Amino acid sequence: MPDTFFSQINPPQRLLMGPGPANVHPRILRTMAADVLGQFDPEMTDYMNQTMALYRQVFMTRNRQTLLVNGTARAGIEAALVSLVEPGSKILILNAGRFGLLLSEIAARIGADIRTIDLEWGEVATPDMIEKALIEHRPQIFACVHGDTSTTMVQPLDGIGELCRKYSVLSYADATATLGGMAVSTDAWGIDIVTGGLQKCMGGPPGSAPVTISDRAADHIFSRRHVEQGLRTDTTADGTRPRIASNYLDLAMIMDYWSEKRLNHHTESTTMLYAAREAARIMLEEGLPERFSRHRAASRAVCAGLRALGLRLFGQDAHRMPNVTGVWIPEGISGDAVRQRMREDFEIEIGTAFGPLAGRIWRIGAMGFNAQKAKVLQTIGALETVLAAEGFTLPRGAGVDAALTAWSAQA
Amino acid sequence: MPDTFFSQINPPQRLLMGPGPANVHPRILRTMAADVLGQFDPEMTDYMNQTMALYRQVFMTRNRQTLLVNGTARAGIEAALVSLVEPGSKILILNAGRFGLLLSEIAARIGADIRTIDLEWGEVATPDMIEKALIEHRPQIFACVHGDTSTTMVQPLDGIGELCRKYSVLSYADATATLGGMAVSTDAWGIDIVTGGLQKCMGGPPGSAPVTISDRAADHIFSRRHVEQGLRTDTTADGTRPRIASNYLDLAMIMDYWSEKRLNHHTESTTMLYAAREAARIMLEEGLPERFSRHRAASRAVCAGLRALGLRLFGQDAHRMPNVTGVWIPEGISGDAVRQRMREDFEIEIGTAFGPLAGRIWRIGAMGFNAQKAKVLQTIGALETVLAAEGFTLPRGAGVDAALTAWSAQA
Repeated sequence: MPDTFFSQINPPQRLLMGPGPANVHPRILRTMAADVLGQFDPEMTDYMNQTMALYRQVFMTRNRQTLLVNGTARAGIEAALVSLVEPGSKILILNAGRFGLLLSEIAARIGADIRTIDLEWGEVATPDMIEKALIEHRPQIFACVHGDTSTTMVQPLDGIGELCRKYSVLSYADATATLGGMAVSTDAWGIDIVTGGLQKCMGGPPGSAPVTISDRAADHIFSRRHVEQGLRTDTTADGTRPRIASNYLDLAMIMDYWSEKRLNHHTESTTMLYAAREAARIMLEEGLPERFSRHRAASRAVCAGLRALGLRLFGQDAHRMPNVTGVWIPEGISGDAVRQRMREDFEIEIGTAFGPLAGRIWRIGAMGFNAQKAKVLQTIGALETVLAAEGFTLPRGAGVDAALTAWSAQA
Repeated sequence: MPDTFFSQINPPQRLLMGPGPANVHPRILRTMAADVLGQFDPEMTDYMNQTMALYRQVFMTRNRQTLLVNGTARAGIEAALVSLVEPGSKILILNAGRFGLLLSEIAARIGADIRTIDLEWGEVATPDMIEKALIEHRPQIFACVHGDTSTTMVQPLDGIGELCRKYSVLSYADATATLGGMAVSTDAWGIDIVTGGLQKCMGGPPGSAPVTISDRAADHIFSRRHVEQGLRTDTTADGTRPRIASNYLDLAMIMDYWSEKRLNHHTESTTMLYAAREAARIMLEEGLPERFSRHRAASRAVCAGLRALGLRLFGQDAHRMPNVTGVWIPEGISGDAVRQRMREDFEIEIGTAFGPLAGRIWRIGAMGFNAQKAKVLQTIGALETVLAAEGFTLPRGAGVDAALTAWSAQA
């Protein structure tokens, strides 16, 4: 075979302990090798309905409209915003990291009137701060990021949906990085739209974005419905509000496709649907409390291990994500040299950082299938060896010992 | 395990002989079970570069900017249009089927000034018609569909790129349904942007959209570049023209992500990249002329088989797609009853139709991995039995005989 055709896919068995993607659960990998189905075959639409039921449990919600957007997590974020936000709509965005900035970027392209609560990277907002901003700006929409991997902090969302309803505001949260790793309590929070991804704590591959939509948000989105000309029949009706700016990411059309109407839109990405469905099944079999507890144990172990190596953690313990930990790169040590040795000598990937934290912190993840005792211990042990080789003085063996103890400690 | 978790994915081994998706090549299915990589790991970026090189051969182009959009084929279409077309830009659209209408739907949401060449479903445009419309409307962009599965016709594109350049028009063609099944001669046509999908003649799953972009189209798109705030550095520069309306489908950002800069955008859908790469490798190993010839043989066999059963084909022989064939549903026969029997008794899916052809034609595909002699013969044989059972009078055995003879005939 000519060289220009290259050889078959044969990736190294690398341990992905960065901010995601993480290694995919082997059951999900195997599921993706299953034959595809026609998009309106009854078995396919059954799988779609089952996937909706599974993700209601994952998102801890009764929202009928719980489905997949066919793209990476970012596609889910844009689908939520472009479907909610009209040109000129006022949106209040909680901006506390790179993915908060992304919300503004997307809203700006929609032509929204953007107001922000701006925090230092590493800070979170209190309900009071949010309420004050809601009163000051009187937005139609409030948007925030639940766990922002750029800062490794979690924004508490208890009571935020209620606050938004008090001021007649539709609410959105990006839970890409937390879904499957800690409680994403859609209904308890009262957040109208929550979106996620597979490639973080769900233990799946990037490429599918689970989304859940409250009835009142769905009503708002359907008021912007515009049925494609090639599909119009007497039973399809357009809404009265401005058309959604994207066709591909139009949640009105996507909800119609996932409904009994099965109104054709895209051709559902069968393989990614299989992956999403299997990821949810694995999560529910494990049990939500058990899964969240496993992520907390991994986080405790990572934090304790890093501290025992003499490293300083980034951000506030009280708001730390349970699946990715920021750690300051010590004075005189090259962050990239460490990452390269980790990859080349140990086949372990840890993460770099963005924006104001670029070159200043590493981000070490233990999420989904990788939130395992052995993988955390391997990572801390490898980091010890690498840091020592790079000239950092540390107590040999202390990191792994501390991580092992912390894993089994009570949370 | 509770019932609410459902059972593992276990699709029937159904033969998908509709307008797509078709059955996926087993090598592609197996490739998708490979472990994922970190998005900036050197092996991952190597795979991305190799995928670019492979798709240059698939698209028959030297375009440096040849890459994947992470979504179904429709995401590729919207990425091309939203990146090319500014609000108020004049776009001329060739409207001759459902996917021509889709181009208008997308352009309308962008706020374009839309002009159309409107044809009956089943007709194609001549270069003269296109030139007249270019002169009349003086658009900035011309957009058309190469093979529209809704009509099963191919729009000839020889000379169209040259015509567009003559009038300083950027050109776009949607080759979702033809890529991998017949020549998509990007450079010979001189079309600026061509997009495809995997789930038709490429023999892959839905969920990835290969796209190729000429240098002049890339220059235009970069003139609309807007780098995300969280990623700005001194070396990144914004363009001067209006920002692209979508972030997720912004080809300027996607080109930057696939370039040496590796500017972070989405997290590349690793598994779908593996699938796209393997689909291209399989195509190139077979050889483009051999692959196109195989699709023509399948088309001859389908057409001859259907005619020998006493059925009448839809549309013009001269412009028939070589991978999907429209056929009139005979008087007194229920199209849906036939499709149901095909599926239930033979595990074969054939396609229904949209818009003015809904309920009037079936669409029978033989594409990608399914453009095989045995699969065509099985389909024609099954259709004979089903039609007879539904009361249609036909010469028993004639269809399969004719298909077998036609497969081996000279084109």
